[in-house]
Amino acid sequence: MEPRVVAIAGLGLIGGSLARDLAARGVTVLGHDADLATVRRALDAGVITTALGPDLAGVEAADALVIATPVSRAPGVLESAAPRLHHLRLVTDVGSTKQGIVATAARLGLAARFVGGHPLAGDHRAGWGASRTGLFQGARVFLSPTPGTAPEALARARALWEGVGARAEEVDADAHDRSMAWISHLPQAASTALALALAAERIAPAALGPGGRDMTRLAASSPALWTEIAMENAAMLGPAIRALEERLRQLRRALEEEDEGAVHNFFAKGREWSRGV
Amino acid sequence: MEPRVVAIAGLGLIGGSLARDLAARGVTVLGHDADLATVRRALDAGVITTALGPDLAGVEAADALVIATPVSRAPGVLESAAPRLHHLRLVTDVGSTKQGIVATAARLGLAARFVGGHPLAGDHRAGWGASRTGLFQGARVFLSPTPGTAPEALARARALWEGVGARAEEVDADAHDRSMAWISHLPQAASTALALALAAERIAPAALGPGGRDMTRLAASSPALWTEIAMENAAMLGPAIRALEERLRQLRRALEEEDEGAVHNFFAKGREWSRGV
Repeated sequence: MEPRVVAIAGLGLIGGSLARDLAARGVTVLGHDADLATVRRALDAGVITTALGPDLAGVEAADALVIATPVSRAPGVLESAAPRLHHLRLVTDVGSTKQGIVATAARLGLAARFVGGHPLAGDHRAGWGASRTGLFQGARVFLSPTPGTAPEALARARALWEGVGARAEEVDADAHDRSMAWISHLPQAASTALALALAAERIAPAALGPGGRDMTRLAASSPALWTEIAMENAAMLGPAIRALEERLRQLRRALEEEDEGAVHNFFAKGREWSRGV
Repeated sequence: MEPRVVAIAGLGLIGGSLARDLAARGVTVLGHDADLATVRRALDAGVITTALGPDLAGVEAADALVIATPVSRAPGVLESAAPRLHHLRLVTDVGSTKQGIVATAARLGLAARFVGGHPLAGDHRAGWGASRTGLFQGARVFLSPTPGTAPEALARARALWEGVGARAEEVDADAHDRSMAWISHLPQAASTALALALAAERIAPAALGPGGRDMTRLAASSPALWTEIAMENAAMLGPAIRALEERLRQLRRALEEEDEGAVHNFFAKGREWSRGV
């Protein structure tokens, strides 16, 4: 079921790394990127064999299309390429939120062949320069079908990702976005909030120890990417942020009241969670 | 100025790692730990040459004493050993807060030879089993003298730490504790708070991606250690926690108001800080 010819729109960290892994497996990769220098580098590296034209002209030759552009551009790419996608067996994406793109695909009449995808493999770097082979080895990949996705399309999406070493999990788009608010978007919000609190105290990154560096690493992530994700998933992320505020307030009050038992309970429960108790 | 015979009370991650590095440099290390099995392991490993007795009996043979017990026990260790410390040239500690121990040393008449110390090299592991050589290579170490510390004692403390690869920085105990509230204690509080928020949603550590794992690693730290630190530094930590709550609330409100500019500003300012802009 693994596709033999895959088109990838957007050759950044995720799209570029997927292209590298697929090419290494002997898959023919057709590529597109808004940045022409990136396309040139991917061609020169022998990772993609062909550059697709405007509106993904040439995508007709592929078995599968993976949209790996910034989240906000994915619906537009899907819409402009839709007339060329009649013969593809799989159309998928890699965005961090799934409800929007799944609904768009259904509206465009692509429901049967569309499977939303989200590899949990990003980091704070971005672009073709950050892409590398092996990025998806052991990573979780969420697959969110439309209400009308054909079983073969879902099987192809699974084969695509498992071929590059990822662990595919099917999840409803709504449940995916709710879960991501906690698993991914809240940690990002917390890291940036901590960075801003330190910035206001004029504490530089170099002043931190290893723990503080871990906690602020995500703050270096792309503001454009995270603005899109946070805005798109605001309804799910808001309550998650509120829950984190509440936990911090609990600790602050316990300290104000010199309630040692409550302070100990705070740290003890955190460690229990870490240990899977 | 580097001491030739060093006594270390408390052979955990910090004390044990210091003992290993000093022994590797040919320094004679005398050791004590409340856990007799730990003392035995340190002797068997050839890291310490001699086990000290109750109230650090035998410490008189050392040039320097490093108290590396849990923070709450350090004043008691200092007090019970004080009569034996007349001939030592340096008495120091490794605790995460400095005002309390510096005041205790002054009260015990040890002001001239005492230098508070704090290596920024801990992690979420603890105990002799976590100790290792090279832990302090490149690490910052804060040195907080008493109002009466002799220049030679400060020079000896500096030589001790620089000998194991650390970068020593002198800082007033009060300024140290204020700074640590932001640099070290707030990141710990944020990590545990995030862990508790995830725990309440029944999200397990294994569900996280690389970013979420970074953000919750500190939550595995010792509850006993962090309860002590947070209680001792409550006056400085409280306002830091409040500042983090405020940053989170700003993002939450921007999302509620669908204020894309404010959301972008939040993430953009965080990245500026990361990049040292």
